[in-house]
Amino acid sequence: MAKKVVTFGEIMLRLSTPGFSRFVQSHQFDISFGGGEANVAVSLALFGIDARFVTKLPSHDIGDAAVNELRKYGVNTTYIVRGGDRLGIYFLETGASQRSSKVIYDRTHSAVSLLQPGEINWDYVFADADWFHWTGITMALGVNLQQVLKEACIAAKKKGITVSVDPNYRKKLWTEKQANKVMVPMMEYVDVCIANKDHAESILGVSAIGSNGSSTIDDQYKSAEILKKKYSFTSVAYTLRQSYSASKNGWSAIMVDDRDCGTAYQSREYTLQIVDRVGGGDSFASGLIYGLLEKPNTHDALEFAVAASCLKHSIPGDFNHVNVEEVELLLAGDGSGRVQR
Amino acid sequence: MAKKVVTFGEIMLRLSTPGFSRFVQSHQFDISFGGGEANVAVSLALFGIDARFVTKLPSHDIGDAAVNELRKYGVNTTYIVRGGDRLGIYFLETGASQRSSKVIYDRTHSAVSLLQPGEINWDYVFADADWFHWTGITMALGVNLQQVLKEACIAAKKKGITVSVDPNYRKKLWTEKQANKVMVPMMEYVDVCIANKDHAESILGVSAIGSNGSSTIDDQYKSAEILKKKYSFTSVAYTLRQSYSASKNGWSAIMVDDRDCGTAYQSREYTLQIVDRVGGGDSFASGLIYGLLEKPNTHDALEFAVAASCLKHSIPGDFNHVNVEEVELLLAGDGSGRVQR
Amino acid sequence: MAKKVVTFGEIMLRLSTPGFSRFVQSHQFDISFGGGEANVAVSLALFGIDARFVTKLPSHDIGDAAVNELRKYGVNTTYIVRGGDRLGIYFLETGASQRSSKVIYDRTHSAVSLLQPGEINWDYVFADADWFHWTGITMALGVNLQQVLKEACIAAKKKGITVSVDPNYRKKLWTEKQANKVMVPMMEYVDVCIANKDHAESILGVSAIGSNGSSTIDDQYKSAEILKKKYSFTSVAYTLRQSYSASKNGWSAIMVDDRDCGTAYQSREYTLQIVDRVGGGDSFASGLIYGLLEKPNTHDALEFAVAASCLKHSIPGDFNHVNVEEVELLLAGDGSGRVQR
Amino acid sequence: MAKKVVTFGEIMLRLSTPGFSRFVQSHQFDISFGGGEANVAVSLALFGIDARFVTKLPSHDIGDAAVNELRKYGVNTTYIVRGGDRLGIYFLETGASQRSSKVIYDRTHSAVSLLQPGEINWDYVFADADWFHWTGITMALGVNLQQVLKEACIAAKKKGITVSVDPNYRKKLWTEKQANKVMVPMMEYVDVCIANKDHAESILGVSAIGSNGSSTIDDQYKSAEILKKKYSFTSVAYTLRQSYSASKNGWSAIMVDDRDCGTAYQSREYTLQIVDRVGGGDSFASGLIYGLLEKPNTHDALEFAVAASCLKHSIPGDFNHVNVEEVELLLAGDGSGRVQR
Amino acid sequence: MAKKVVTFGEIMLRLSTPGFSRFVQSHQFDISFGGGEANVAVSLALFGIDARFVTKLPSHDIGDAAVNELRKYGVNTTYIVRGGDRLGIYFLETGASQRSSKVIYDRTHSAVSLLQPGEINWDYVFADADWFHWTGITMALGVNLQQVLKEACIAAKKKGITVSVDPNYRKKLWTEKQANKVMVPMMEYVDVCIANKDHAESILGVSAIGSNGSSTIDDQYKSAEILKKKYSFTSVAYTLRQSYSASKNGWSAIMVDDRDCGTAYQSREYTLQIVDRVGGGDSFASGLIYGLLEKPNTHDALEFAVAASCLKHSIPGDFNHVNVEEVELLLAGDGSGRVQR
Amino acid sequence: MAKKVVTFGEIMLRLSTPGFSRFVQSHQFDISFGGGEANVAVSLALFGIDARFVTKLPSHDIGDAAVNELRKYGVNTTYIVRGGDRLGIYFLETGASQRSSKVIYDRTHSAVSLLQPGEINWDYVFADADWFHWTGITMALGVNLQQVLKEACIAAKKKGITVSVDPNYRKKLWTEKQANKVMVPMMEYVDVCIANKDHAESILGVSAIGSNGSSTIDDQYKSAEILKKKYSFTSVAYTLRQSYSASKNGWSAIMVDDRDCGTAYQSREYTLQIVDRVGGGDSFASGLIYGLLEKPNTHDALEFAVAASCLKHSIPGDFNHVNVEEVELLLAGDGSGRVQR
Repeated sequence: MAKKVVTFGEIMLRLSTPGFSRFVQSHQFDISFGGGEANVAVSLALFGIDARFVTKLPSHDIGDAAVNELRKYGVNTTYIVRGGDRLGIYFLETGASQRSSKVIYDRTHSAVSLLQPGEINWDYVFADADWFHWTGITMALGVNLQQVLKEACIAAKKKGITVSVDPNYRKKLWTEKQANKVMVPMMEYVDVCIANKDHAESILGVSAIGSNGSSTIDDQYKSAEILKKKYSFTSVAYTLRQSYSASKNGWSAIMVDDRDCGTAYQSREYTLQIVDRVGGGDSFASGLIYGLLEKPNTHDALEFAVAASCLKHSIPGDFNHVNVEEVELLLAGDGSGRVQR
Repeated sequence: MAKKVVTFGEIMLRLSTPGFSRFVQSHQFDISFGGGEANVAVSLALFGIDARFVTKLPSHDIGDAAVNELRKYGVNTTYIVRGGDRLGIYFLETGASQRSSKVIYDRTHSAVSLLQPGEINWDYVFADADWFHWTGITMALGVNLQQVLKEACIAAKKKGITVSVDPNYRKKLWTEKQANKVMVPMMEYVDVCIANKDHAESILGVSAIGSNGSSTIDDQYKSAEILKKKYSFTSVAYTLRQSYSASKNGWSAIMVDDRDCGTAYQSREYTLQIVDRVGGGDSFASGLIYGLLEKPNTHDALEFAVAASCLKHSIPGDFNHVNVEEVELLLAGDGSGRVQR
Repeated sequence: MAKKVVTFGEIMLRLSTPGFSRFVQSHQFDISFGGGEANVAVSLALFGIDARFVTKLPSHDIGDAAVNELRKYGVNTTYIVRGGDRLGIYFLETGASQRSSKVIYDRTHSAVSLLQPGEINWDYVFADADWFHWTGITMALGVNLQQVLKEACIAAKKKGITVSVDPNYRKKLWTEKQANKVMVPMMEYVDVCIANKDHAESILGVSAIGSNGSSTIDDQYKSAEILKKKYSFTSVAYTLRQSYSASKNGWSAIMVDDRDCGTAYQSREYTLQIVDRVGGGDSFASGLIYGLLEKPNTHDALEFAVAASCLKHSIPGDFNHVNVEEVELLLAGDGSGRVQR
Repeated sequence: MAKKVVTFGEIMLRLSTPGFSRFVQSHQFDISFGGGEANVAVSLALFGIDARFVTKLPSHDIGDAAVNELRKYGVNTTYIVRGGDRLGIYFLETGASQRSSKVIYDRTHSAVSLLQPGEINWDYVFADADWFHWTGITMALGVNLQQVLKEACIAAKKKGITVSVDPNYRKKLWTEKQANKVMVPMMEYVDVCIANKDHAESILGVSAIGSNGSSTIDDQYKSAEILKKKYSFTSVAYTLRQSYSASKNGWSAIMVDDRDCGTAYQSREYTLQIVDRVGGGDSFASGLIYGLLEKPNTHDALEFAVAASCLKHSIPGDFNHVNVEEVELLLAGDGSGRVQR
Repeated sequence: MAKKVVTFGEIMLRLSTPGFSRFVQSHQFDISFGGGEANVAVSLALFGIDARFVTKLPSHDIGDAAVNELRKYGVNTTYIVRGGDRLGIYFLETGASQRSSKVIYDRTHSAVSLLQPGEINWDYVFADADWFHWTGITMALGVNLQQVLKEACIAAKKKGITVSVDPNYRKKLWTEKQANKVMVPMMEYVDVCIANKDHAESILGVSAIGSNGSSTIDDQYKSAEILKKKYSFTSVAYTLRQSYSASKNGWSAIMVDDRDCGTAYQSREYTLQIVDRVGGGDSFASGLIYGLLEKPNTHDALEFAVAASCLKHSIPGDFNHVNVEEVELLLAGDGSGRVQR
Repeated sequence: MAKKVVTFGEIMLRLSTPGFSRFVQSHQFDISFGGGEANVAVSLALFGIDARFVTKLPSHDIGDAAVNELRKYGVNTTYIVRGGDRLGIYFLETGASQRSSKVIYDRTHSAVSLLQPGEINWDYVFADADWFHWTGITMALGVNLQQVLKEACIAAKKKGITVSVDPNYRKKLWTEKQANKVMVPMMEYVDVCIANKDHAESILGVSAIGSNGSSTIDDQYKSAEILKKKYSFTSVAYTLRQSYSASKNGWSAIMVDDRDCGTAYQSREYTLQIVDRVGGGDSFASGLIYGLLEKPNTHDALEFAVAASCLKHSIPGDFNHVNVEEVELLLAGDGSGRVQR
């Protein structure tokens, strides 16, 4: 029977310029939907997990479209509250070469950000659930959501559900100081932390390790181990992104996990020719949740997560449109990209 | 030397579904910009008028795109204030046959709606100006804009500038009662009222004339005359739209004008095969302002306005992309639509 | 609690040329999905009905896309069997003026057409169901499906479920003689017949009534009454399409229903400016099923069905993307298509 | 064995704005190719005629694309001369309702317009040919082409080939006076004249018949008969276009033909919902040539031509993408546009 | 006078997702046509060869579109048999980075696969022909085509026509064992074998040479020499593809040819940034056929083939849209891709 | 107060094939506008400079569209002369990998190329101006423009305005010999020369330095120094493009400048993943003009120019849609292309 994973956060209307057009050049926006926790839910649903996404959406047609998109890919949308005035929007301009992708957020006053404590029945949501995942972005959306998330975490822990977090700092939403202040107290509810060394240091209070800007793999391990110990996490995973340009990245991850007695493990590295890197981190998170739920050991869980998120970078949109079989194919093969025919 | 017309209000990002797709079916939005007063400014600029559009826009790339679009068509954008967080958005689904076009507004908290009294230097804006046009939509955007508009009207009248208004009631923004309460006191600053019989009755307090739902041309005249007298307007024009379906309309107008000693005049009627009717009323307003500024008599002014707005209905987007020569061509001809080659 | 309706048949990949391009001119196909019974299921789901669609689809990505599309609009897809080699396809060229729309079927050897008797567990499918709908198209797909449909009808009747049929003759699939031979014996399982006078005469053995080609409304009534009596149907509804051109149709319906003691009733008529007429009949069927399940009388049921299908003709694709509120709005109003804002 | 028809003239790159966008709004041009005589050749090839198109095209990739497009639809392109610098271009903005379609020509200095007398080997081109068709547009392209056309006509007559002309006056290319001066002397080579009453009067010197602007069917007949007699044509056909708007036209034709002893004949009239009317006249010409070559009498020839060109108006692009079977279907039916499935 | 080359096989409707969209994300398919032997024919026609493509296509509009596409690029389509029910289809999702391109075949029951022995008049097809090319894909389409191909080969050899084959194994069509069984006996009719080391080993019975997965250039030579000797081929060419990812490949080839007394020769290697690699092998085959027909020696023939197919990978669609001049330009230059202006 | 820069030349309608389609495959052209001096003007306007572009454009809608596009990005278009018949056009096919981009010019007989000496009032144009920039392309457009440019240069020098040139040789417009003959005498009016070593040698008469085809950085310096001395330029900048393929380039520049006492300086080098390289050189020129006007030293001016033009290569279209802040961001950072959010 399928494992049950709950994610909670904001799903936004994503309006992206076609091709590599800049905002001021564009005459059309490609419509899709995305948001950290929604991305994780969709990916898990595609992996065959019973994924429940919790949010609040206005009851107009654009809100319907967001629900439809989640439902299309098999996410359980029955826990979504309908109401409020607006759906968060983010505008995306896709970068190339030395030109970075650019995000303009238009998400303040969104229905979910105005959610009231008590509005979600967490006992109902978490019935039979195995896992709860949330991200720092939801915490950045204001005091309301901070309170609601705390309710959720308390309810989840009461039921003995595994809780994972992706700190996912966004400088256009808040400062590192603000993030640190509200994120740290929430760590007591967290079992699995899916982060990177920068966020661990800036948001979660791990002291800087290694010289500035060029950390070795050992620095990465050390940071992860310190983070794990500091908050008594059962697992800490760090993604390692080598940003050569907006078009080309190196991609791998490390993990320290209780299952392997805390032995640090480093994954294979992929050289990515990037189609769309938004949602890359979320695809790692969903891959890792799947891996920790379904794979026999840390090694396999981590490699699954890295391979899944490697594929994400070749797919337009926030969602990682790959199934387990396709990830396994990459794991079994050489990433040589030969035509399947 | 070109006449100078100032308009003030909100310009929004317009996101419309391509073809006749419904919101839930669409994968792309066509990007354009629009808003009652901006539409009037663009149309006047295309008629060769020195049109100044006043608003407030956020200083990010989407705000730049709005400025660019106005500038592209020759609108003077130097009076636009930059700042604030968001640009108003409206989503548009184009109807056909018995299915109405549908607008979803996402314009609350827009930069312009948060404009503060005193933020616009109206003396500077109105320097050398001949005309000031505004609409009821701006009044519907909240107390701030109501105060700013009052400042503007007072400044305009002090300079002896002609002021025109289009009441333009939108039921998704406020109630008729709310509109009536704040619109009526503003009429003292208005010279030219560009409306229709329904708005005159619901918003401007003209008692209902004629039996419900089927007013005769005489009812129209009577209503316009009463409205003109009630507020001592120099001119009142009413558009007459026969809505057979979302695809087909009849289109004409009447006018009562001091220039013609208050004689009521009715225009020719056009049967419209509709491509895009959003902005239809604005194209009538800009046609009428042009006509009153440049045409020798009421008859010519009104026919120009009706012909200009007839053409608008055949053009996608809010803006009326026609020049004076094209309007004159329709006026001179028979609207038979023969290929020009 | 939502009523439960089951439909069974083929859903095809619909590949349509954009705009009014002919097949030989087209460089892209718009992708959608459609098929008589799937169209009914989607429409009912959008009306809030618990709609279950039963079919067989190959387990590759295009099959997934078909399931996703149904799921997106809320259809219950858990009864769909996966397997087989191919998905039926139909190519569509949209006509205009005197040029008819053109369909090229590429649906032979589809997974569903090779379904074996016994492959569907009808007792499971019909658990708690209120209604079962099928069409003559499914019968045209070969002996296998004729046998499976018979199984289904027997199972449905055993459970006391209402059964409706749309004869829906397609001359590109079989001859009238073939259709007549297999359709007539199935009528014993049918309660509600949703047809038109032509099909009643050519397929269901009702003798021709009225002079050829120009039947009066009385002819229509007579034919429906004869059909109703012949097969002891509880209800017979006929659509009346006036085909002025591929762009313009008249659209209404009549009904003879036991609820109204068999009194014949004629609906309002709509003049349609056609965007896409494929699925028009299916939208009438779903509207009627909804009406018969939820409306207090024949009159309201029929008007709901005609209004719903009126709107369908303005929407691209096979599916009728309208909800109950939108149909009621048309019923309450005048179909004048004014912008909703 | 297929009849052989030669046409000679200019084929241009046609760059049209998508949908109903105006030039200043457009971000893409749809690419196609067209020109009076090329349109006739393509249509005849689609009717199964061995159609040879003669022109001169530059040897770069855009020239290749023009050849490819002709070849794609089965036109014999072996007589096309390659060389010169540029391909003529015409920009097209499609009108709607009261807004006319607009053509901007950019065709001066095109390769074909600089063709030298003697450059085409007309004896080779006309080998085995049955028919030669040309239009007044080619005459409007300058002295070179006037000389070449005269060569062609002389060669054609020497071989006893039937010659048809469509005067096709374009006011953006020359004046009526200029046209009259060079067209009249060419009429001695012409057998079949495919025109309309306006062109007959303005270009071919037929005195105006009937009151200005509203000619009766009798006026049409009289004009055609006078024209026929004046130049000893074997056949004269006039198209009758009722231009209600850019979206809606009435369409029929009359003919006076030696085959029917000069009895005037009027075709059925179609009410057209227009998709693209450019090439409408050419589709009538090709239909008539086909009809005169393949149909037993004037009546059938004319009805074929009118039906073929009726269908053209529903098809985007200059070319009439219909085959004989499709025209016959319209002739046999009622133009009701029911879906073919 | 142009050399005459015949190819025989299946041309399919190719429906590819735009950009890098996955199947489940796509709302449109780009339409093109392709298939191994058709691709070779088109490429040869663009090189100026008189290329004849033989197949069977249904007589509906999609079949017409396939013929048109071939004719557009100058392929001789007069030998194509029309009839049967369906055109083979293949769906293509273009990969990137580590995500492979994915092909879904929907080609069973296609018209050509049901072709009967005797249905093609090979003596007529091969009249004056210089070369006959076929591929293993055609053999994979069933017993009918295996018989027809044998007829063709016998007829070709009787006329002394050079026969080339590309084994082109597709695991979605048949197993290696099945392929081996029917392909080996056909080799007696073949002069030129265009393959790669993998296919030589798996299909044509050459024992594996070198260690698994990493063959040296010497292994390549050895394998080609063994293959050449085993079947007494006059020439054997192997393509060498280094698949770094779906976006980046190395591309070169080797050849052993009687003209150079069997001396093995290796071409220059290109590093490809891939736009579309489907048809890459076919573009090598057509380049080699052209080279062997028109170039003075093996070296030039092979370099021409590799350069031609290098360019193919930068072009969307199956067809290699390059002419001889463009290939020569790459051969003469450095592949530095400077703008030609 | 913003510096004032004047550029003069031709702006063309740019018609480019979408994606990587070849000309013969394309069904649409993307519309934009471009031309060396217009590109420089737009880029400078985006940098906040008061940029005036001088040209002549026909007064039809396509001419309007060109003016609109310039105006949209803030270029001062009041000095543009309207008149003449045609707008120059260039067709662009975007290359990839080893396939070069291809330009087809259709610019002869353009309005600007027929400009008469005396038609531009240069004293009016240069009022208050700080800089005048022109390119060798304008000189290649014929004797008229050569005369007009000489007028402009004389007027500019009389006012003490800095003059810069980009020799910009185009072999499709003229020969090196022709270019050399008319360009050399113009150098007396030039202060700043923005070129590359090849053009310096072929057009401006600097003897070849270093071995053919592989010049060292010292060769580059030497050439620039000789060029600077030869014509007494105050500054000479050379771009250095390493063309690995149409998809990947190395990009840097050197400069010799009086401000730094003639010390040669080499910029940082960027590895470009190319989206669109047309306009790359122009974006360097505008960056350098901006740098020389606004930056304190040669180093900063050159780095600004190289960074600005680095970004250009990632942007579709001729224009460099970046502002000063974005260039500074790249200069401050590492070009790692991380998402800005």
